[in-house]
Amino acid sequence: MKTGFRAGKGHVVALSGGVGGAKLAAGLAGVLPPDRLTIVVNTGDDFEHLGLTICPDIDSVTYALAGMNDTTRGWGLADESWQALGMLKRLGEADWFQLGDRDLAMHLSRSWRLRTGATLSQVTARLTASLGIAHAVVPMSDSPMRTQLQTADGWIDFQQYFVAQQCRPKVLAIRFEGEADMAPGFADALARDDLEAVIICPSNPFLSVDPIMAVNGVRAALAALEVPKLAVSPLIGGKAIKGPLGKLLAELGAGIGNAAVAAHYGRVISHLLIDHADQDDEVLLSAHGLGVTVTDTMMHQAADQQRLARVVLAAGGVAIGSP
Amino acid sequence: MKTGFRAGKGHVVALSGGVGGAKLAAGLAGVLPPDRLTIVVNTGDDFEHLGLTICPDIDSVTYALAGMNDTTRGWGLADESWQALGMLKRLGEADWFQLGDRDLAMHLSRSWRLRTGATLSQVTARLTASLGIAHAVVPMSDSPMRTQLQTADGWIDFQQYFVAQQCRPKVLAIRFEGEADMAPGFADALARDDLEAVIICPSNPFLSVDPIMAVNGVRAALAALEVPKLAVSPLIGGKAIKGPLGKLLAELGAGIGNAAVAAHYGRVISHLLIDHADQDDEVLLSAHGLGVTVTDTMMHQAADQQRLARVVLAAGGVAIGSP
Repeated sequence: MKTGFRAGKGHVVALSGGVGGAKLAAGLAGVLPPDRLTIVVNTGDDFEHLGLTICPDIDSVTYALAGMNDTTRGWGLADESWQALGMLKRLGEADWFQLGDRDLAMHLSRSWRLRTGATLSQVTARLTASLGIAHAVVPMSDSPMRTQLQTADGWIDFQQYFVAQQCRPKVLAIRFEGEADMAPGFADALARDDLEAVIICPSNPFLSVDPIMAVNGVRAALAALEVPKLAVSPLIGGKAIKGPLGKLLAELGAGIGNAAVAAHYGRVISHLLIDHADQDDEVLLSAHGLGVTVTDTMMHQAADQQRLARVVLAAGGVAIGSP
Repeated sequence: MKTGFRAGKGHVVALSGGVGGAKLAAGLAGVLPPDRLTIVVNTGDDFEHLGLTICPDIDSVTYALAGMNDTTRGWGLADESWQALGMLKRLGEADWFQLGDRDLAMHLSRSWRLRTGATLSQVTARLTASLGIAHAVVPMSDSPMRTQLQTADGWIDFQQYFVAQQCRPKVLAIRFEGEADMAPGFADALARDDLEAVIICPSNPFLSVDPIMAVNGVRAALAALEVPKLAVSPLIGGKAIKGPLGKLLAELGAGIGNAAVAAHYGRVISHLLIDHADQDDEVLLSAHGLGVTVTDTMMHQAADQQRLARVVLAAGGVAIGSP
């Protein structure tokens, strides 16, 4: 085990996708000070739309950490308006992707600064700081790597599948297009002497976490790390709260339930946190040498997010210390 | 005189800047059918802002023709909202240019389509048609030509002068940066056998009309045309209703009042329409060989715009025919 940290002082790396992952990321940011946490976000869902570079997962994490996310709708900004989108529709432009007016400002600022030569890491640091976020939110890579899904009609981009076709097509395979190196903040965080734990947030293993794993060197680096590597299962009662995970598991023949999640993560994780509703899975998972914690993984409010964050950190032996 | 037209059938070309010109352009569109009118718009004010290509005068003309312009504020769209701008400000981006949410959709659509290779003419035709405008709205050129003003601090771009510095700096000189050919719709309209008249709308001669004149071949083509060329003076009571024209006339030593406007247009025009408030100018202007019409040039409402349009067309001998 690494010994570069003192109890209550070490660093934690969290890997996150969008909405579900963003909730735990916000919980971790609520219990760990900024210098102890790096949140690495999937950018496989990123896409170009009307000339804008849109990073849905970075935005979800940003809005959750800034306390600006809409908790009723489940995505995007609270108190959002849709005037620009209505006008775009009137102008005959594509309206399948919901562009809120304030959300649009994020895309505009990001796209413009990327165009002037800033990296996605630099742009993300600027946007998050502007919204008062003190914790590091880091894209998995500064280079594009795009999640694509093979359907009966051929390979389609993630947003085409997820938003435009609302996950209806049967998925035959998933791939990640592009060669991407870790963003500096990601590589640096994994290499820290005081790294205490890696946490995989409750995001879709295939669509939100696998892209991060597909970045050059990530899988090997995680496998080599001797710190606790804890994943929170995105399943509750064997089903995903939201999104196509259950459908995907079946279509890809990946098995069902937490056994499938654990099998998919393999050696990358040392611990799996599962919901009380799935406590029957504990015996089987433990038999495969995995540390298992059964807890309440549903996160409705900030208090739930922080409670789960504390449980995950405790399962990894990470002391929170005095805030 | 050209004889390619029959009474009530010939074509009219209107040259327009932003707000003031847009009002007469809307009036002309209200009394002439689409196949008899081409509205050519100044693009010297166009600029790049946060990665968007913004064409203020094209937008003003478009909003006026679509009946979507805000008549109280005097610019932009009616019922506009400003959520994106507020967020851009929060993100630390420049907020000196007022980007309304629906206005932003215009800039986004335009910028995206320009980036994919469409010409400004094509983009403008698409945007205006989307908003139900049947008349041709044509940029003066598909190539950028940028109006710049020399001040004590050097040359500055038009929007920097007009919006950011609100016309405060003293202007020493004006120039138009870039080499631009007429947009196809402009050149074709001027070359029509059935061209009956050219109308210069009541826009700033130095800032809104001169850029059009600076496009390759325009000044020569207008001078050679033997049809009536009518300008509506932007002055009422010797002063501009809006904008820096009065200040500019003084700073550039161009004289005062309609004599200065007439001298500036020179041989390009054959007729000048002036307001009743300036009827004393009529004798002097007529003495210089100019056809002069004294009328009410203030346009508050659509009825005023169409009334003035009828007066201008009548002064040019253009029959409106049955609508």
